[in-house]
Amino acid sequence: MPTREPDPRLELWFDFASTYSYLSVMRSEAIAARHGVALSWRPFLLGPVFQAVGWTAPPFLALPAKGRYMWTDLERQCRKYRLPWCQPASFPKRSVLACRVGVLAQDSPWIGDYCRAVMQANFAHDLDIDAPETITSVLEHLGLPAAALLQQAESAENRARLRAQTEAAGTHGIFGAPSFLVGGELFWGDDRLEDAIALAAGRGTR
Amino acid sequence: MPTREPDPRLELWFDFASTYSYLSVMRSEAIAARHGVALSWRPFLLGPVFQAVGWTAPPFLALPAKGRYMWTDLERQCRKYRLPWCQPASFPKRSVLACRVGVLAQDSPWIGDYCRAVMQANFAHDLDIDAPETITSVLEHLGLPAAALLQQAESAENRARLRAQTEAAGTHGIFGAPSFLVGGELFWGDDRLEDAIALAAGRGTR
Repeated sequence: MPTREPDPRLELWFDFASTYSYLSVMRSEAIAARHGVALSWRPFLLGPVFQAVGWTAPPFLALPAKGRYMWTDLERQCRKYRLPWCQPASFPKRSVLACRVGVLAQDSPWIGDYCRAVMQANFAHDLDIDAPETITSVLEHLGLPAAALLQQAESAENRARLRAQTEAAGTHGIFGAPSFLVGGELFWGDDRLEDAIALAAGRGTR
Repeated sequence: MPTREPDPRLELWFDFASTYSYLSVMRSEAIAARHGVALSWRPFLLGPVFQAVGWTAPPFLALPAKGRYMWTDLERQCRKYRLPWCQPASFPKRSVLACRVGVLAQDSPWIGDYCRAVMQANFAHDLDIDAPETITSVLEHLGLPAAALLQQAESAENRARLRAQTEAAGTHGIFGAPSFLVGGELFWGDDRLEDAIALAAGRGTR
């Protein structure tokens, strides 16, 4: 039997291509630490979740006014949280390679630094986060063996791991990103981070 | 030339059928008063906004998991804000009559009480808010001449007024409800109420 993880714990489910995931990836670790909550990183691919209901693009793009609003809102939120921001030239970016490395490393001590660096590559520096050069550069800046990690990330075993994690997202009822799981309870959207943390810390509204 | 409205002012754009509008309609007046911000009520119909992009139902219903989540989240938010809550048997309800009376009365001193009573009829008592009996009962509880008001609300002139306000929503870039306008700046969703109020009160992040 698997050993039970220590509580309180927050699972952060996110996609490196997702705009609002950027906010949560940048904010979660500090808030969790402040409240004595352990953080589990759960990168997954949002594309298959949307494709399952026939969507070929993020719902933000279905309504042009909503798409325009999203960029204004993101800029405003980044100002509020003092995060760097540069609207990417393309959205959504392909995030498969970034995610494969993320799922490979999700229990490593450097996972938080990796995720924040990839998110900033996307949303502060507008780089191609599916390019091996970008991920290599991120890993090397963290003092990690980039070539070996990319090779492991691209292995059949690890690809299957990402597919399984993406399927698990659906099983948990996740339909967007970022999402937070506390025990079995689901919270969707960066705006619910504080509520999810409060529940994890035993100060929830339940 | 129209006289300029005094600032600071927040416009609350909402549909009586909209779940998250319930939260903002219940919360806005007290928060605005606390920050010395004047509140303008702007009821409109969300249906035509969605129909314009080919949607026949609220986006929440496009993803079953998202629809299920919405009800959980609403219950949780109502607990957080200490608002009464009863999941309506049908969603979205037709809100045309409620909205016609709302647009007729939007500059009356009793508009806040009216909007909160209709929202509670929908989301705390699961009543049909398009039924004349429901709206009559709400108006009579406020000590108002219900029959005369319903007659004015159903007049061709007032119907046109609601159509114009719904079109104006689109012109302002509104794509969902609740939405807040502060000067020309748009905020979407109950989660942005505090940010919108902060901007209106001159303490925004701009």
